[in-house]
Amino acid sequence: MSQTGIGFEPTELRERVGSRIREFFDAKVDAAGHLGGEYQQLWQAARLASQGGKRLRPAFVVGVYSALGGDDEESAIQLATAFEILHTAFLLHDDVIDRDILRRGVPNLAGEFESDAIARGVSAERAGAWGQAAAILAGDLLIHFAQGMIARLTVADRTRVALLDVLDRSIFVTAAGELADVAFSTGVCDPHLSEVLAMTERKTATYSFEGPLTAGAILAGADVAVVDTLSEFGRLLGVAFQLGDDILGIFGDERVTGKSASNDLREGKETLIIAYARSTSEWSQISDGFGDIGISDGQARSIRRSLERCGARSFVEGMIADFADRASELVIASDLPSSLQANLCDAAQRCVGRLV
Amino acid sequence: MSQTGIGFEPTELRERVGSRIREFFDAKVDAAGHLGGEYQQLWQAARLASQGGKRLRPAFVVGVYSALGGDDEESAIQLATAFEILHTAFLLHDDVIDRDILRRGVPNLAGEFESDAIARGVSAERAGAWGQAAAILAGDLLIHFAQGMIARLTVADRTRVALLDVLDRSIFVTAAGELADVAFSTGVCDPHLSEVLAMTERKTATYSFEGPLTAGAILAGADVAVVDTLSEFGRLLGVAFQLGDDILGIFGDERVTGKSASNDLREGKETLIIAYARSTSEWSQISDGFGDIGISDGQARSIRRSLERCGARSFVEGMIADFADRASELVIASDLPSSLQANLCDAAQRCVGRLV
Repeated sequence: MSQTGIGFEPTELRERVGSRIREFFDAKVDAAGHLGGEYQQLWQAARLASQGGKRLRPAFVVGVYSALGGDDEESAIQLATAFEILHTAFLLHDDVIDRDILRRGVPNLAGEFESDAIARGVSAERAGAWGQAAAILAGDLLIHFAQGMIARLTVADRTRVALLDVLDRSIFVTAAGELADVAFSTGVCDPHLSEVLAMTERKTATYSFEGPLTAGAILAGADVAVVDTLSEFGRLLGVAFQLGDDILGIFGDERVTGKSASNDLREGKETLIIAYARSTSEWSQISDGFGDIGISDGQARSIRRSLERCGARSFVEGMIADFADRASELVIASDLPSSLQANLCDAAQRCVGRLV
Repeated sequence: MSQTGIGFEPTELRERVGSRIREFFDAKVDAAGHLGGEYQQLWQAARLASQGGKRLRPAFVVGVYSALGGDDEESAIQLATAFEILHTAFLLHDDVIDRDILRRGVPNLAGEFESDAIARGVSAERAGAWGQAAAILAGDLLIHFAQGMIARLTVADRTRVALLDVLDRSIFVTAAGELADVAFSTGVCDPHLSEVLAMTERKTATYSFEGPLTAGAILAGADVAVVDTLSEFGRLLGVAFQLGDDILGIFGDERVTGKSASNDLREGKETLIIAYARSTSEWSQISDGFGDIGISDGQARSIRRSLERCGARSFVEGMIADFADRASELVIASDLPSSLQANLCDAAQRCVGRLV
């Protein structure tokens, strides 16, 4: 299995993206030192937040760029770094919005600042506010600096503006998806099947798949047909991937996913599988425990069985297979180079394969 | 008194900035309509948040640009718009960080979304989370689109990069100031005089004064000496202005400032005047009521008297006069065009004049 878990094997170029990300944060940590100890701590925590992920988005940017014959490695690295930093920004603000102070089981930036304040004798409420403020500011900074990297690419004006447009779309659509997600989880809107599917696409597919894939192609000077194919492929793959994450969040093996498969049930995460189950008579068996922070592992098992019995699991798994197949077919019917076709089809099939 | 209250009379160019801001938001409201009713509502609320301010930053950008002989009005308008949209973004996130749901006495974006959710039957806690999420996302979007305007300026590469650098500095330093402000208000750090003064400079002077003034000059093709003069002038004026706001926040006439002069005392806002008072024996007369949301107008009057008695008020007023004088002297000794010198000195003296 590749490092990303979704195709595109590690390359020297991708390692250089990792170095560039570290260099970016190291420089900011240094500069922040002149503006106060807490501010330097903020940048150190932001650097930590940028580590440990799968680096999916840089893999897409440089993978597509190289496959399409791009040879301006410096610009490809900068573009890939921008998407990864944007991703870190979104994670930081996503956690603030969800009031999470843990990520991957350890304190996130807000959690670190919060416990630090408590250790300094600050009240729990004020320490919480301090943690949230720090995470909001860190995300703001990273949203800003991500675009700054694209704005400074030394490429043709036309190319730079096209890349800025990709980023605009990524951010504009993702914010809509995130807002819809919160609307469902707070009960402001009813989570109907079609709206939850649209939210899934907007929140994940656009900035994590469509954006990096098309940006890599645009930087490589690809023609409109290639960019359009990758855009549609990214949309399909992104939905398949996120729906797979939703399944793993409920049915996954904790030893593989690294997170408890009961968490999404406890938190009442509104996903397509839940939206489907709501429309069935089995929902009465699920609704009591769903979103109850105190449910036992036994109750979680019972909900999982209900989600299978009512057909929600197989419905979503069928959709994943369908989206992945459509993504592959699109690529095979395209004029993309055969090595890129193989990589993209591999990525699509991994979306299905990781579930079995 | 000019529209901005700080010099630079209204011009046709500034009116065109106002139109450009409206056009920006109108286009986003339209586009958001395709991504859900709540998302469109978010952009409508963001548009509302951008209205009603003094438009200080655009006045600086276009005022300096025109005075230095710039004739690319289109770019000046775009640059000025970027700074104003960044300002709206900061206001939105500042309110989230302070947990404010009112601005200028009416519900802000978070407050509007919160009451809307309550009207839909959502619990108070979840409605609050909905409002906060909406304001975080709106600020994120505006931070992004502000830079996008500068990144798309059709000017020489060197000029665009220099303007991006100004924006980088504005955001990097402002975040440090905002973090320090929260550190003081939550009690994470002790508000010593010199740190509070540094916070004041970082939080306000950089993005609201130094940034717009130097950006206008850079766009006009000014040489390094001019840019440096405006940078230092902006720093001095920005501190004078913010210290003046701090005074007005405690001693101002509600009918003029539009906000209660007891609010800053009730909220326990850590300003230079308070930092000074803390170091005097009079503080024991102030500390009880300061930061107490329930203090009466009589108690507030008593605190105001204490702040005068201990010399805090005159200390800060002296600093304002000093910073304003140094700002004026710097300008008079410079090679800036005389009309610009007059405007800048006028702005500096207004910082003092509005307090009497």
